[in-house]
Amino acid sequence: MSFAADTAVTRLAPHEGTVRFAGEVHDGWDIGGNANGGYLLAIAARAMRDASGRPDPVSVTAHYLRPGKPGPVSVEVQPVKEGKTFASVRANLLGADGRPLLSLLGTFGTLSSTLDASEHHELVDAAPPEMPSFEECKPRQHAAELAPAFMDKVDLRLHPDDSVFSSGQKSGEARMRGWFAWPEGADGEREEVDTIGLLQATDAFPPTIFNVELPVGWVPTVELTTHVRARPAPGPLRCEFTTRFVTGGFLEEDGEVWDATGRLVAQSRQLALVPRG
Amino acid sequence: MSFAADTAVTRLAPHEGTVRFAGEVHDGWDIGGNANGGYLLAIAARAMRDASGRPDPVSVTAHYLRPGKPGPVSVEVQPVKEGKTFASVRANLLGADGRPLLSLLGTFGTLSSTLDASEHHELVDAAPPEMPSFEECKPRQHAAELAPAFMDKVDLRLHPDDSVFSSGQKSGEARMRGWFAWPEGADGEREEVDTIGLLQATDAFPPTIFNVELPVGWVPTVELTTHVRARPAPGPLRCEFTTRFVTGGFLEEDGEVWDATGRLVAQSRQLALVPRG
Repeated sequence: MSFAADTAVTRLAPHEGTVRFAGEVHDGWDIGGNANGGYLLAIAARAMRDASGRPDPVSVTAHYLRPGKPGPVSVEVQPVKEGKTFASVRANLLGADGRPLLSLLGTFGTLSSTLDASEHHELVDAAPPEMPSFEECKPRQHAAELAPAFMDKVDLRLHPDDSVFSSGQKSGEARMRGWFAWPEGADGEREEVDTIGLLQATDAFPPTIFNVELPVGWVPTVELTTHVRARPAPGPLRCEFTTRFVTGGFLEEDGEVWDATGRLVAQSRQLALVPRG
Repeated sequence: MSFAADTAVTRLAPHEGTVRFAGEVHDGWDIGGNANGGYLLAIAARAMRDASGRPDPVSVTAHYLRPGKPGPVSVEVQPVKEGKTFASVRANLLGADGRPLLSLLGTFGTLSSTLDASEHHELVDAAPPEMPSFEECKPRQHAAELAPAFMDKVDLRLHPDDSVFSSGQKSGEARMRGWFAWPEGADGEREEVDTIGLLQATDAFPPTIFNVELPVGWVPTVELTTHVRARPAPGPLRCEFTTRFVTGGFLEEDGEVWDATGRLVAQSRQLALVPRG
């Protein structure tokens, strides 16, 4: 089992301008029975990327329509524009019954893996979150702490200050910081996180609002947009998610993903519904 | 002339599951010959809203594919899901030659106009930008300061600290704050900004990076997502746009729009290309 294998898609014969793919929601990627949103996004984005003919997602938006269950899925991709720099496609990820689970829009291109400040004007008014090292942070594990099954599929290591929610406490800040990596395989090796993996990273962490005085429960994603800025260097990723506005039944979750060299590699924002409580 | 009239669309006969609309890019909404991105978004969103059967955009994403020129346009909308709370649709805005200018994905619903904290859990970790009053801030005018023609279509009043770029200075902060309203008509009345107008407000301001040491030029939008949180109260809107990451040739612009009662009514993020210079 690997992320690449569990999100793989097979291209089928096209039909009236639609490029069709078959995939599968594998067991174990769920949180309370529903497949994790980042995982569904990764399956769809893999198909979109293939249809786009470009190596990297640049900006991908998914609207979450229905929960995904283990079993076969398909992705119907429609090319919208083939440009010199970018290709844009739209897609629906369909469940076994043919109803859409996610509707997506994406722009794909070729991202740099060695951002060269001399090539581009740079301005960065932020820094990766300060955290204890990857080795010092405790992995979240399914069996050990009643975390969702999904937590065995990723190696997620929360900042100790932000993981207090799991023992019923609240940090008081709507923030979740931690490391993201793929788990060690039987051979002791880890799959490296590529630009499709970054999409997963932006929707893998416990909700920020678990750390504030709001009801703890399912926080359904309405929409998630991820901007991928660069291909990450090998090594665990530093991630930070924050929420500033819980209003009118909605909240946003803003994410930043930094690679091992301290470079921002992805930025995300999702609109979600406040749990009823 | 009014925003509502200049972004109006007419529903045509549907064709194979696609709801089609005719509209027009009116003169004067351009910046250097290309129609403003927020204006094109508003035309498309009006058609999407109509097809969705719901009164308000909740989350709308547009990918910008080609510049828009004055003349006829059409919008092809495909319903994706009709839910109890939300309806999701996707759309393409097509130019006179039938090629897509924008590709869009949106979720529509019914938003509150009187957010009641007692109905919902609330948490707001931010405040509207501090600014001189609407009356004290100077309107940007086309003729007066070589601002784009588009500036006569909106009543945009920048924070004096952030408008220094127009005299060739730099504030040093990648930030643009100001008031947004529709201009006074011949009768001295102003159209109120509704939730479609909010989409326009999130892409109407000069680029944040005009205030930092980067080349000044066209900042092409790749993708813009706007979350509308509530229907705004009558009166001018306070807006703030900031950029924290200019990397690898890309930058994001994060927007917040606050209404006259001090309530956050919209949040936006766009991915754009750094001007070549």
